[in-house]
Amino acid sequence: MAFPKFKFFNVTISAPFIVHVEINRPAKLNAFYGPMWVELKAIFELLSHDPEVRVILLSGAGERAFTAGLDVEQAAKADSPLSANFPDPSRKATVVRRHIYELQDVITSVARCEKPVIALLHGYTYGLGIDLSSACDMRFCTSDTKFCVKEVDIGLAADVGTLSRLPKVVGGVTSWVKDICLSARPFSADEALKNNFVSRVVSGSKAELMKEGLETAKYLASKSPVAVQGTKSILDASWGRTVEDNLTYTAIWNAAMLQSTDVQRAMLSGLQKRTPTFEKL
Amino acid sequence: MAFPKFKFFNVTISAPFIVHVEINRPAKLNAFYGPMWVELKAIFELLSHDPEVRVILLSGAGERAFTAGLDVEQAAKADSPLSANFPDPSRKATVVRRHIYELQDVITSVARCEKPVIALLHGYTYGLGIDLSSACDMRFCTSDTKFCVKEVDIGLAADVGTLSRLPKVVGGVTSWVKDICLSARPFSADEALKNNFVSRVVSGSKAELMKEGLETAKYLASKSPVAVQGTKSILDASWGRTVEDNLTYTAIWNAAMLQSTDVQRAMLSGLQKRTPTFEKL
Amino acid sequence: MAFPKFKFFNVTISAPFIVHVEINRPAKLNAFYGPMWVELKAIFELLSHDPEVRVILLSGAGERAFTAGLDVEQAAKADSPLSANFPDPSRKATVVRRHIYELQDVITSVARCEKPVIALLHGYTYGLGIDLSSACDMRFCTSDTKFCVKEVDIGLAADVGTLSRLPKVVGGVTSWVKDICLSARPFSADEALKNNFVSRVVSGSKAELMKEGLETAKYLASKSPVAVQGTKSILDASWGRTVEDNLTYTAIWNAAMLQSTDVQRAMLSGLQKRTPTFEKL
Amino acid sequence: MAFPKFKFFNVTISAPFIVHVEINRPAKLNAFYGPMWVELKAIFELLSHDPEVRVILLSGAGERAFTAGLDVEQAAKADSPLSANFPDPSRKATVVRRHIYELQDVITSVARCEKPVIALLHGYTYGLGIDLSSACDMRFCTSDTKFCVKEVDIGLAADVGTLSRLPKVVGGVTSWVKDICLSARPFSADEALKNNFVSRVVSGSKAELMKEGLETAKYLASKSPVAVQGTKSILDASWGRTVEDNLTYTAIWNAAMLQSTDVQRAMLSGLQKRTPTFEKL
Amino acid sequence: MAFPKFKFFNVTISAPFIVHVEINRPAKLNAFYGPMWVELKAIFELLSHDPEVRVILLSGAGERAFTAGLDVEQAAKADSPLSANFPDPSRKATVVRRHIYELQDVITSVARCEKPVIALLHGYTYGLGIDLSSACDMRFCTSDTKFCVKEVDIGLAADVGTLSRLPKVVGGVTSWVKDICLSARPFSADEALKNNFVSRVVSGSKAELMKEGLETAKYLASKSPVAVQGTKSILDASWGRTVEDNLTYTAIWNAAMLQSTDVQRAMLSGLQKRTPTFEKL
Amino acid sequence: MAFPKFKFFNVTISAPFIVHVEINRPAKLNAFYGPMWVELKAIFELLSHDPEVRVILLSGAGERAFTAGLDVEQAAKADSPLSANFPDPSRKATVVRRHIYELQDVITSVARCEKPVIALLHGYTYGLGIDLSSACDMRFCTSDTKFCVKEVDIGLAADVGTLSRLPKVVGGVTSWVKDICLSARPFSADEALKNNFVSRVVSGSKAELMKEGLETAKYLASKSPVAVQGTKSILDASWGRTVEDNLTYTAIWNAAMLQSTDVQRAMLSGLQKRTPTFEKL
Repeated sequence: MAFPKFKFFNVTISAPFIVHVEINRPAKLNAFYGPMWVELKAIFELLSHDPEVRVILLSGAGERAFTAGLDVEQAAKADSPLSANFPDPSRKATVVRRHIYELQDVITSVARCEKPVIALLHGYTYGLGIDLSSACDMRFCTSDTKFCVKEVDIGLAADVGTLSRLPKVVGGVTSWVKDICLSARPFSADEALKNNFVSRVVSGSKAELMKEGLETAKYLASKSPVAVQGTKSILDASWGRTVEDNLTYTAIWNAAMLQSTDVQRAMLSGLQKRTPTFEKL
Repeated sequence: MAFPKFKFFNVTISAPFIVHVEINRPAKLNAFYGPMWVELKAIFELLSHDPEVRVILLSGAGERAFTAGLDVEQAAKADSPLSANFPDPSRKATVVRRHIYELQDVITSVARCEKPVIALLHGYTYGLGIDLSSACDMRFCTSDTKFCVKEVDIGLAADVGTLSRLPKVVGGVTSWVKDICLSARPFSADEALKNNFVSRVVSGSKAELMKEGLETAKYLASKSPVAVQGTKSILDASWGRTVEDNLTYTAIWNAAMLQSTDVQRAMLSGLQKRTPTFEKL
Repeated sequence: MAFPKFKFFNVTISAPFIVHVEINRPAKLNAFYGPMWVELKAIFELLSHDPEVRVILLSGAGERAFTAGLDVEQAAKADSPLSANFPDPSRKATVVRRHIYELQDVITSVARCEKPVIALLHGYTYGLGIDLSSACDMRFCTSDTKFCVKEVDIGLAADVGTLSRLPKVVGGVTSWVKDICLSARPFSADEALKNNFVSRVVSGSKAELMKEGLETAKYLASKSPVAVQGTKSILDASWGRTVEDNLTYTAIWNAAMLQSTDVQRAMLSGLQKRTPTFEKL
Repeated sequence: MAFPKFKFFNVTISAPFIVHVEINRPAKLNAFYGPMWVELKAIFELLSHDPEVRVILLSGAGERAFTAGLDVEQAAKADSPLSANFPDPSRKATVVRRHIYELQDVITSVARCEKPVIALLHGYTYGLGIDLSSACDMRFCTSDTKFCVKEVDIGLAADVGTLSRLPKVVGGVTSWVKDICLSARPFSADEALKNNFVSRVVSGSKAELMKEGLETAKYLASKSPVAVQGTKSILDASWGRTVEDNLTYTAIWNAAMLQSTDVQRAMLSGLQKRTPTFEKL
Repeated sequence: MAFPKFKFFNVTISAPFIVHVEINRPAKLNAFYGPMWVELKAIFELLSHDPEVRVILLSGAGERAFTAGLDVEQAAKADSPLSANFPDPSRKATVVRRHIYELQDVITSVARCEKPVIALLHGYTYGLGIDLSSACDMRFCTSDTKFCVKEVDIGLAADVGTLSRLPKVVGGVTSWVKDICLSARPFSADEALKNNFVSRVVSGSKAELMKEGLETAKYLASKSPVAVQGTKSILDASWGRTVEDNLTYTAIWNAAMLQSTDVQRAMLSGLQKRTPTFEKL
Repeated sequence: MAFPKFKFFNVTISAPFIVHVEINRPAKLNAFYGPMWVELKAIFELLSHDPEVRVILLSGAGERAFTAGLDVEQAAKADSPLSANFPDPSRKATVVRRHIYELQDVITSVARCEKPVIALLHGYTYGLGIDLSSACDMRFCTSDTKFCVKEVDIGLAADVGTLSRLPKVVGGVTSWVKDICLSARPFSADEALKNNFVSRVVSGSKAELMKEGLETAKYLASKSPVAVQGTKSILDASWGRTVEDNLTYTAIWNAAMLQSTDVQRAMLSGLQKRTPTFEKL
């Protein structure tokens, strides 16, 4: 198995069934601009359905940043559709709205990826870094990670996902969520842990973080992919819907998925104290 | 007042208005199989409407487990409807779906019980133990409780309630929720406390836990049952619905319920520093 | 700019763009009765649209209480519409329902205020104090604040907002939320912090709290009001709705709001290390 | 195959896979009282899962009525739980609420029956007759059927299903829906047809109606039960949910159900101009 | 009983418990401008809670129009807040949004009126005339009524209610709804009847329409107000919510409302063939 | 302006701002197979954002069919991913689910097209023909159109949109909707009109239908595109959401869109009895 080559992302196999997606523009603190969005979506749509993939690690190249967010310099350049002249604000609004939907769609491709994605955060994790990691399933970070919901500082409400997904992944519209989102003040790894944005802070270097991420990924990859991917799908469908609707979703989902051979394999291996193997998914 | 006799549950009166439901299959770590589900639902439907009951304590018999979950040995036996032969996967899916709905319905009978239910957890609280205690209102545990959302380990996504209710009772689809649900790794009482799954960890023995549960129950039972049961109903209706819809639910609910004599009794007792008594409900 | 004079609230300008609303009935522990509700709504509707206002601080006068809640003495007086005679319980229910809607509407006027509101809590913060501060965006408190969801103690389920907004602002219907709401037991500042009800506990006096509140307000007021108010609106719309619906809301909102001059001003100031100024909103 | 004997319902096999449920209390215009509710639920839960059943016809015995609704005489008798004395209106409200839920649950058992139910209406179809037939999938009637949402005439808002299901089955809260529900005025078969409550009016006698019902039932019964029952489930899940959520439900449902042998059998029979046979479901 | 005097509306008592609200600006085809909105809301808030009122008739003065809609001449005048200068489109958007919410709120006050409102339409019923009558419970019209969802013709999407309520009151987003809303083409009374927008077309003069309206109102006013108003509330809550949620709403509502004396009065009168009288509500 | 060439669709300009999309596989009754789906989505994504396009006409080439639906012959060929071998039903379910999502996504691209789409139906309009035309805004047909929700006849529940969109476009889950969907019986143009599936039946030939479609399209194209496209967006967002949420959507949408020059142009043209022209959108 080999992946196509991408210009701004390294996509490599870390271990059987585990793919590492590395944002690779370290000279610019992994800041995003136009072509990177296109690649990001292509990568996650590919991995979502690839049966050789069970867990994805997402991190940023270099020592300084997961991603510093949007590349403001590039965004300010005049060739953006948003810089065009418009006959009136309603027509500009239409183009802006389409553009936002397009970018949201990229981040949503990460959130909809069928396989679990673990975001491994270090250094600057600003603006888009929050949108992106909120769309992942788990977030681990080094102790020196610097977080910031930066958008207010550039005069806008975050619009590619942070405001919609942050309450979901930290548990509600807490006083702290309002604090960091309204003020755009930076916050530390400790604060991120205490407020449930990350679930682990690795005290050592980025290398330690990568190691812990890989270990967790290996653990997940050893489990039934039918079970793991089903669990992800059902948990993600719970937000904004009632318990009753989620129970229904679960029953309909499992009506098919319980018919896997994984159940027998898992049970038997449990009884025999063996490590089970599972068919690809 | 006396309750019918159940084979797998001890249902006893701990104090006035307080009923203790004890899962009673300690030789098998209180693991569940067929007939226990039927009894569990019957018990909670009974207690829900019994005016002599104001608070329910739910615990597991023996020193080793609240419940180790599904009795896999029994589940593997060939006489289950799921083991029958089916003409095709769609027909098997239909039977599986019905079966899941039936089991979900049992756990939902705990969640819909009109009286508060306090889960007192110790030892193994695995798989179904999470489904069941997530359907309770409060969760206390001993410091040596061993938790696990075990289902992924037997090749399936938890389907009788954990994935629908866990985000609700711990506050969102946090990184930690994904971690423990996708990996099926065990977690400790401390971790359960830190992540809001339980609200108290009792440092001593199971007996200490039972004592603390009973004291809390007595405290709740001394309050207006109209107020307590209304509070439960309104809080449970909030998840997956908007603030506006929940405010409406509250207003319509209280239009009737404020017409209780409890308001006068409670207010007067407050002024007179007396303990109020309330009519049954 | 000067505000109209209110009988039970001091409404003053603390700093440019920052208004301080102080509940001013300290002799009665800032307990609420009839005319205060009317004023509270008028104040927040005024501030919501006033372009001179960017952040609001809400606190209670005196050293003893943010507010002790409903003034039960006044409520017990016979001239309340609820004390009238009714031909039957359905007709009383109609009047009660209307009355609850009316009071909910007051608290909702705080929640819908377009500008961020920071609740600064000290002393008794009981009953209505929880309803009211749950409708604010952030909650800070002194270390000696005494909290209580008091309603169960007067025989009723809290009905002007606590039960609908508390799960939203602390993150779900946790074991702790059930504990404090079902039991009406008081809880401390530490407990409030640990369970996400407040995001900061100021160790010193009330004056320290006011100072920290003001500093935070100044920080928020220095940011783009288009960005800050948009962020508030989008976050508040997330609860009880799906991620998908919230993303749509965000895109439509920002189609207009990104056309502010704030974006250029903020970006330019960022590059030039200057403090930006923004047009009123 | 034989069904248990019921006191108030004739449950018979009209043709292969087609069951006829006849409300059998013609001397009282098939009016409902206590024990009939219990039987009705038992019958529909039984038929829902019985693999010998593909379509259900529901009609009323005798020439005069589908059902005249609630047996008011019986309801007025003093031994009803609602006639008991209550300490206060909140406690009575609790018992009333439980009672309504219990009756709603009976009608819901008809709506949730997995097999299509065709209501064949004639004569008086009043009150409960509307609740009941609104829970069916199709409604045919004779030209002399007399319809009435009768509840307002006995001083109450219809509460076992009409007001929740009528807008769904006729298409919205139309002027006509408000007209007939607010006024309790009777309406004719023609009016029912014009306003989409029934889809066919049979001009002849009740016998003609039964014949047309049976023919339609036979037609449905000749189709793939996997396809028919899936179509019912998906259509019923659409109301009150977004198109997007219903598309998701459909995809998850069909992931299992497309794996039936019915697809091949149906396609092949189509090509070969043969009548297919399908496995039971 | 006498109502305050309004400048643009005649509010009179047509018969016991029946109030007639007449839009009274016939010289301008009852077109709306600023002060009329304020009065309209005040009137419906008043009538909603007035126990002397059971049914409301809403019509337009003069022979030519129910209402021709917004008074475009007035709207074009320069003193509107929307004509002010704004620093940028985001700030204008904020003022526009607030203004729309304010106008929507007026129409919503008609929709939320607890008493049934019958719109009696004749002549021009354009633009706002559709918004307004869609917020009523029933719509009757003369055969020469001219309808038009006019907004597209003035360059905007209807924003004070038509697009949100029309699908609800005619049954879905039909091809016809899209046709008339996207094209702003006028349509006739017959077309309105055929497509469920009105439920009756009176063939004669406006006087005939008023007579038929009054007769219907008298019929409704003779029924239990508890039953009628409850039916309205439950039906209006059904749109956009699931059958399950609406059933719950119904049960909680009726837990209080079934405790009226109307049930006994209505039943007894039915048995005795007498006309019941009911307490005010 | 010229469109790219498509193999299975003719995409031509019928008149200024009006594009005609013709399904072009008449030899096979315009039945769909693999590559056609890809083209269909590409076309509608293109037209959705093309400022030269204001209205789209969708029809089928040849005299015999709009489309006969899925090309069953092609579908039965062995190279489909669904024909592959799978280790177990859960793994097949995963591939099936992805495949359904992919096809649903194509039909949804028609429904999400920002410009109004008028389906012009004639001859066979079977299966997919219903899915596809339900995703359009208006449906006109010739009097000899033959409709059929055909899916049940091939052993499956319709899964690319019919069951989710039909209740929305005809107004609820009526008895008729259940009738035609459960039975797969064909129905006529008259029945389609009576039940609101189409809004016009053209009595003459297909050429007459095309003419009427074009006239309607021209009428729509002469209106403000800001108004028309906004109206479509708001109406489509109403289904499955509450009136309150739709009002909010409308206000936020129009905050930007009312700032078009179309309002002035439309108003002025109205006063001057001129035909307005509008900027592209």
